[in-house]
Amino acid sequence: MRSRSQLIAEVTDNAFLGGKLMLRQPAKGYRAGLDPVLLAACVPAVPGQRVLDLGCGVGTALFCLGARVDGLSLSGLEIQPDYAELARFNAAENGIEAQICAGSVSDLPQELRQKSFDHVIANPPYFEETSVTKAQDSGRHIGRAEHVPLSDWCRAGIKRLAPKGRFSMIMVADRLPEVLDAFNAGLGDVAVKPIASRQGQVARLVLIQGVKNARGPFRLHSPLILHQGDRHIKDGESYRKTVADILRNGAPLSFED
Amino acid sequence: MRSRSQLIAEVTDNAFLGGKLMLRQPAKGYRAGLDPVLLAACVPAVPGQRVLDLGCGVGTALFCLGARVDGLSLSGLEIQPDYAELARFNAAENGIEAQICAGSVSDLPQELRQKSFDHVIANPPYFEETSVTKAQDSGRHIGRAEHVPLSDWCRAGIKRLAPKGRFSMIMVADRLPEVLDAFNAGLGDVAVKPIASRQGQVARLVLIQGVKNARGPFRLHSPLILHQGDRHIKDGESYRKTVADILRNGAPLSFED
Repeated sequence: MRSRSQLIAEVTDNAFLGGKLMLRQPAKGYRAGLDPVLLAACVPAVPGQRVLDLGCGVGTALFCLGARVDGLSLSGLEIQPDYAELARFNAAENGIEAQICAGSVSDLPQELRQKSFDHVIANPPYFEETSVTKAQDSGRHIGRAEHVPLSDWCRAGIKRLAPKGRFSMIMVADRLPEVLDAFNAGLGDVAVKPIASRQGQVARLVLIQGVKNARGPFRLHSPLILHQGDRHIKDGESYRKTVADILRNGAPLSFED
Repeated sequence: MRSRSQLIAEVTDNAFLGGKLMLRQPAKGYRAGLDPVLLAACVPAVPGQRVLDLGCGVGTALFCLGARVDGLSLSGLEIQPDYAELARFNAAENGIEAQICAGSVSDLPQELRQKSFDHVIANPPYFEETSVTKAQDSGRHIGRAEHVPLSDWCRAGIKRLAPKGRFSMIMVADRLPEVLDAFNAGLGDVAVKPIASRQGQVARLVLIQGVKNARGPFRLHSPLILHQGDRHIKDGESYRKTVADILRNGAPLSFED
């Protein structure tokens, strides 16, 4: 774990939702892009509800949601202490009240285990960590990020949901079967919104929602298409209006659209 | 089981693939529509390959495929003897060579168990049979179609596939998670092509393919949209050109399009 001064020297401040949010994040390593913003946009939270972000990073999804919906009770869990610290910094800087806990999805801190939530959101790592990575020069085992299977993320989230609470996740599309399998243990009304770069292309990401103890059928919605046209023609902004509204104006994302 | 003469009195003859195929089917009960034609269109079979249709009905998918690709060895399994008989009649009437076996997916006849196939195709019943249906007036148990779980259809098909053989299924979209779970036992390179009535609508059907012993990632393709426009405006043909080409001209259906 790096010291705070070392961390501060390696951060950038980035605008989200058209400048409504300014988020500080490490210049290297995981950096928030489109994905947590889309995740936050799809959560149909209403004032007064409790939201838990599993693996909140610097708080991008959680604070995008807080910026769109007033009066939410926001909690975030982040395993990397320096990211958790940046999340606390970002909450304070943006005047958002949030409880940020450092800890693992596979072993939730007591302060979160005591609570239940109307919404759990998650943007877990997209790729499985290899179990051991060897440094090429020495053959010595080097540190690795803790590996938590996707099914554990789902199980932890489902457990923390109140009855009829909703789980919203964004994941690479090629892991959809895994998520559906894990959601099957406790969620119904499962719905998928594919996300594709352009019309006619394979889905790159999926938004997946499920409702605790619900029994409604699975629904596969029409894809959200990010960019105009069927190929990259010129540099610069090419987002479709619906998407630009989500990214720049903090508009909600409906699976039905 | 109805006698043949009774059966013949209750059939219709319908044109498929723009009249390339004439298929006789019962006037009542399950009647082939769009779905088996789309299933057949997505199968990338090449001359010389062996194809098994599980639950072939009167042979619609099997013979649509045979009409598009020359030199296939076609086998069909059908539990209802009168449908199997009609499938044999349809094969003969259309000059297509096919082996049609009467029997259950849950207990394949010996003549099919001895063979392996490059392609297995299936258009299983879309709804789970209730285990017992009672006649309203008498409370007496009436006959019901044999119930075979979707997972058994998948297991039987996977078992009959040759190494690198391909399973292609069409199913209502709300049962996609079940199929993915069942395909997970033996198939890789699993790909889904959603089918929606109109642009922006939820998928009504899915085409699902998987390859035996393959290890490639899951892919969620762009939906096949059946009809032009965003709502029903006038009576008459409204199929998009791609779809009309499949239905009327026997064109193939690529998941990539």
